[in-house]
Order: sequence, then C-alpha cells, then structure tokens
Amino acid sequence: MASRADDGCGWKGRRAVQERAIETRRNILAAAAKVFEEHGYKAATIADVLAEADVTKGALYFHFPSKESLADGVLREQDEQFPTPERAGKLQQLVDTVMVQAYRLQTDCMARAGVRLTLDQRAGSIDRKGPFARWADTCRQLLETAQRQGEVFPHVVALETAEALVGSFAGIQAMSQAYSNYADLTARVGILMRHLLPGVAHAPVLASLDLSEDRGERVFAEVLALHSDEPDRFRRVPVN
Amino acid sequence: MASRADDGCGWKGRRAVQERAIETRRNILAAAAKVFEEHGYKAATIADVLAEADVTKGALYFHFPSKESLADGVLREQDEQFPTPERAGKLQQLVDTVMVQAYRLQTDCMARAGVRLTLDQRAGSIDRKGPFARWADTCRQLLETAQRQGEVFPHVVALETAEALVGSFAGIQAMSQAYSNYADLTARVGILMRHLLPGVAHAPVLASLDLSEDRGERVFAEVLALHSDEPDRFRRVPVN
Repeated sequence: MASRADDGCGWKGRRAVQERAIETRRNILAAAAKVFEEHGYKAATIADVLAEADVTKGALYFHFPSKESLADGVLREQDEQFPTPERAGKLQQLVDTVMVQAYRLQTDCMARAGVRLTLDQRAGSIDRKGPFARWADTCRQLLETAQRQGEVFPHVVALETAEALVGSFAGIQAMSQAYSNYADLTARVGILMRHLLPGVAHAPVLASLDLSEDRGERVFAEVLALHSDEPDRFRRVPVN
Repeated sequence: MASRADDGCGWKGRRAVQERAIETRRNILAAAAKVFEEHGYKAATIADVLAEADVTKGALYFHFPSKESLADGVLREQDEQFPTPERAGKLQQLVDTVMVQAYRLQTDCMARAGVRLTLDQRAGSIDRKGPFARWADTCRQLLETAQRQGEVFPHVVALETAEALVGSFAGIQAMSQAYSNYADLTARVGILMRHLLPGVAHAPVLASLDLSEDRGERVFAEVLALHSDEPDRFRRVPVN
C-alpha cells in the first residue's frame, strides 16, 4: 500500500496543489494586468480577464471574487513583489528602488497596470491611496535610515520628501507614457532625482550616487541573480 | 428709418451675436468639463454634454463637431486662459504660475477636467502630450530668463528642469486627488517646489521666494483685480 505522502493526497500532493494554485493565481493576475492596462478599470470586465487568462470561471472566482479584488491584486502585486538589494548607502538604495520601478514600467505590463489603476480616477471603489502610501512608506524608511547615518540633511522631514518623490514619480511616468510610451522614462527619472536630491543630501553623498540611465536594469539583473532559485517570482508580463 | 448700426444687423447687432456665441461656447465647455471630470474621456458622451449645457444640438455641433474637439477645447481652455502677472524675479513668476494652477485645481472644474484628460490613458485620440509640452514651454521660457538674470545656476538645462517640474506637478496633483480630493494640494506643491529648487537656484534667491500655501489664491485675486473689466474671462466652473 502506498504511503499517503506518495498517493497525491499527502505532502507532495498538497505541495503540487499549492503550486498549481499559485500558478493559477499568477496567470489570472497577469491577464487582469493586461486587461486593466488596455481598458482601464471601469471598462474592464471579468469576462475579458477570463478570456485572457484561460482559466475556468470557478478558478477565477475562487481566487478573486470581484473586479475590485482583481484590481487590488494587481496593485499589491506591482508594489510588493520587488525586493531591492540592501546597500550600505541608503540614498543609493532609495535611488535603486525608484530606478528599478522605472525599468519595470518599461518592461512589465503588471507594473504598468498597477500605476494605471493608481492614477485612474474612475476606479473609485478601489484603494487608490494605498499604492502611494505603501511606496511613500518604503521611501520614508530609507530616508530615515539615511538621515541617521548622516547621508541626509538633519532638516529633512523624511515623510515629506518621500511623498514628494512618490508623487513626482507618478507624474513623470505619466508624462513619459504620453511622450514616448515609456521609452524615455529612465532618462526622465534620472533627471528627476538630480532635481530632488540637492535639497536632501550633502554634495559628497550626491557625487557618490549612481544615477545613470541603465541603473534600474542592472539592479533588476542583480536581484534575478540573487534569487535564481525562484525565477517565477520575478516573471514579467510582456508589454505589447 | 433706423440706421443699420441700430437695427440688430449692424455693428451693435454683430457684437451681440458674437457675445452670445462666446457665451454659448463657454457654457458648452463648462458642461464638457463637468462631464469629462465625472466620467473620463471614453465614457463621456456628447448627449451628456448636451444635457448639462442646455444648448441646442445644432449650437453644440457648430462650436464642437466631435467629442475630440470638446476634449481639445477643455484642454486648451485650462492651460491657456490664465495670465500670471509679470514679476521682476522670474523664479517667483514660475512659482506663481505653478501655485495658481494648484489653486485652480482646488476651485475650478475646468482645470480638473483638463488635468484629468491629460492623464487619461484611454483618451487615446486626443493630444495628451500637448498640455505637458505647452506648460513645459511656459516654464522653460521663465527659467531661461531667470538664468540670463543670474537667478538660476548656469549649469541648469531649462527644458529639463521645466519638464521635471511639469511632470512632477502632474503626479503631485494625482496624489493629492487620491489623498484629499485636492484639499492638501497647495501644501504639497509648496513642498515639491522646496525640493526641486535647491538644485536650480542660489540660496539667496530661494530665500526671497514666497512659497506659502496661499500664494496661488493671492496671485489669482491679483489677476482678477488687474482684469476687473472682463470678469467672465476668469469665471470658474464650480467643483462638486
């Protein structure tokens, strides 16, 4: 008689079921990202997502009972999935966080859909403040550590600077989308950082920062190499 | 026999006809602003605008033959109607331009609709780059004059700074809309300017700038007083 661990109902079986569930959830969110990016929140329908995802209606509703929960899933996916590497210099780590997000907007439909939902005024029932607040919180923590380390001026109010940075970034990406469908985004974000940072940090700190246009792409590759055992975690949804 | 000038077909008559046409056009744009602000570009219909404007279908199509032309009219209205007073200090004039726009977003549905259309990715057929470019051009000219006057550092590339400012502003207003329905916008724009300007201008120039939260409201009142002979020109469309 086979042990329970081998018969598909035991540990290995449960893990396989879990992995399928994770994969299904990921496919649904990738499909939802494409649909929200193309149609916006209000015009998007669950039927569009079903057609794009190639999953059963039951599977979709099991993971996401409503359009709101799909949008919330996309928002959380795009702003929580990417761990920027730790740096001794916290201002560089802040720059890396921003630059990687710019690179992801150039290359990942999930990131684009998240930003689009955040800026979509018609998406009234979803939490549009949430992504701003979560990004601002990440930036605030890095700025506070940078300030404790003496990288950032003592007069800087970390939350104010963090919110100014996150808000500015949101607009710069919208401008880049309108001008070049994101092609000039990394250049624009570099220019933005060069404008925002002189009021925040000492010149020697600024001079040490890598603000080059391909910084985001290099940091992204670094993270993939660090997490080569879990490639699916950083799988991108191709842009059109 | 009455002269032609008095019979409704002469100079006075033509002026009355012109004035009615201007008033009709203004009413239609105010209605369109409300509709675009509430529904966004794609969901808005000419029927909605007709219902809101209380004009005949013929009058509407005479002034605006399509939804695109209505959206374009709102975009041009919001970014061209407001003349900020000349200042000796061109950096203050730049600040005034930005602060007045923040105040108008708090109080004028036309301004809100214009920004919303600019950031609306579904409004694919209208010129979304245009408003960014027109605002950036205004800011670039002020920065170049400021640079010639020695207010702005020689290394500043005026167009880069202008575009960084305009893009940032677009995002800060979106964040303020999501956080507080624009209530905190003037405070946020003050903080943004305090972050962007230290890389652009000398400390004594910065210290001389009025960046206070009510600056936009005061400059707006100044413009109304300067143009007290044409109050209709600056009539706002009330926000809900």
